[in-house]
Amino acid sequence: MDTLPIIGGTGALGFGLAMRFARAGVPVAIGSRDAGRAQEAAAKAGDGVEGLENAEAAKRGPIVLLTVPFRAQSENLTNLKHVLSEGQILVDATVPLAAAVSGKATRLLGVPQGSAAQQAQEMVPDGVTVVSALHTVSAPVLNDLDKELDEDVLIAGDRKEPKQRVAELVERIPGLRAVNAGALEAARFIEGLTPLLISVNIRNKTHAGIKLTGVPEPRW
Amino acid sequence: MDTLPIIGGTGALGFGLAMRFARAGVPVAIGSRDAGRAQEAAAKAGDGVEGLENAEAAKRGPIVLLTVPFRAQSENLTNLKHVLSEGQILVDATVPLAAAVSGKATRLLGVPQGSAAQQAQEMVPDGVTVVSALHTVSAPVLNDLDKELDEDVLIAGDRKEPKQRVAELVERIPGLRAVNAGALEAARFIEGLTPLLISVNIRNKTHAGIKLTGVPEPRW
Repeated sequence: MDTLPIIGGTGALGFGLAMRFARAGVPVAIGSRDAGRAQEAAAKAGDGVEGLENAEAAKRGPIVLLTVPFRAQSENLTNLKHVLSEGQILVDATVPLAAAVSGKATRLLGVPQGSAAQQAQEMVPDGVTVVSALHTVSAPVLNDLDKELDEDVLIAGDRKEPKQRVAELVERIPGLRAVNAGALEAARFIEGLTPLLISVNIRNKTHAGIKLTGVPEPRW
Repeated sequence: MDTLPIIGGTGALGFGLAMRFARAGVPVAIGSRDAGRAQEAAAKAGDGVEGLENAEAAKRGPIVLLTVPFRAQSENLTNLKHVLSEGQILVDATVPLAAAVSGKATRLLGVPQGSAAQQAQEMVPDGVTVVSALHTVSAPVLNDLDKELDEDVLIAGDRKEPKQRVAELVERIPGLRAVNAGALEAARFIEGLTPLLISVNIRNKTHAGIKLTGVPEPRW
């Protein structure tokens, strides 16, 4: 089984995913700017997790998760420009929350390309495909291994086969179901789910997720 | 029980809601530009439904549903300016789909106020409160009375009590649960759920709805 690099894997979302994937038998490479911090996180995350500097981690497997705050997305993608290679898939989970500029986490910044995922597609080397996914799974819930998941992950991208591969990967985590949400431009609305869920969470004192009704058997 | 005016109640969403509310024992006034068409629709919708010209319908009850295409929203609100009165609640279900300008139904137009609901709030008379709701319940599913509903309706608005009243109304329809999604500006993301669901529907050949996980007991 291929190793799964998680760039920004020391953050709450990336670390929660690292633990859940490792538990599901997927070897994980946690990436961080600082190799030492990555190694510390890897040790905490459990068996089958290694910690590396981001650029080293990104070379470890064919599907690379990017789980960094929006304010760090562009810098990270610049650093990965000469590291990512043709055929790799970049799963972008970035949400352009206004919190990136000290605004509210219930608001989204406008991204010139339409969405953070489309910005990522513009920045990756030719031959690397961006797939948008994993915006709505709560980091606190992922990090609490006692909590069972039972929710959907909406996946957007312009190419079918990379989306299918990401869907299979996502569904390695028990309780997550992948739903095809269409072309990469749909990422704009998927990214909008995060501030919406944050707004719901504030009112309801919870960590909500998304489930679609009427899609008993997702098509891929 | 108060009558529920549905402006644009001859359209697919409004008519489906009219049938479902009438079945639940809520008296409905279907509004249309054309009183004759409203009466025809009312006769089809079943007992307890009357058909009236929009302006007449809007006076019939304290909570008024607006279920018109985005291209007709502004004109409808202009016509209602001298009809709606202080204390009424306008439930806006408008989605600014690019289809309004012959674009795709998987794309959203930018609305200067931030969302169609915020545009509505700017246009209603003083003392009328806009609440954003009912964007994600599929019109074809509503219109097929054999289909049981089991989904959430996200409700956004700046005042608590009107939101609570709309929540109670929505929950008169069996299978719909109302969830507080925060301030009216969250309507931007709720309106974005519609093109996202349309994109999911195209890929999965279905009529999807939304359910939130992790909100066992919504707070109001």
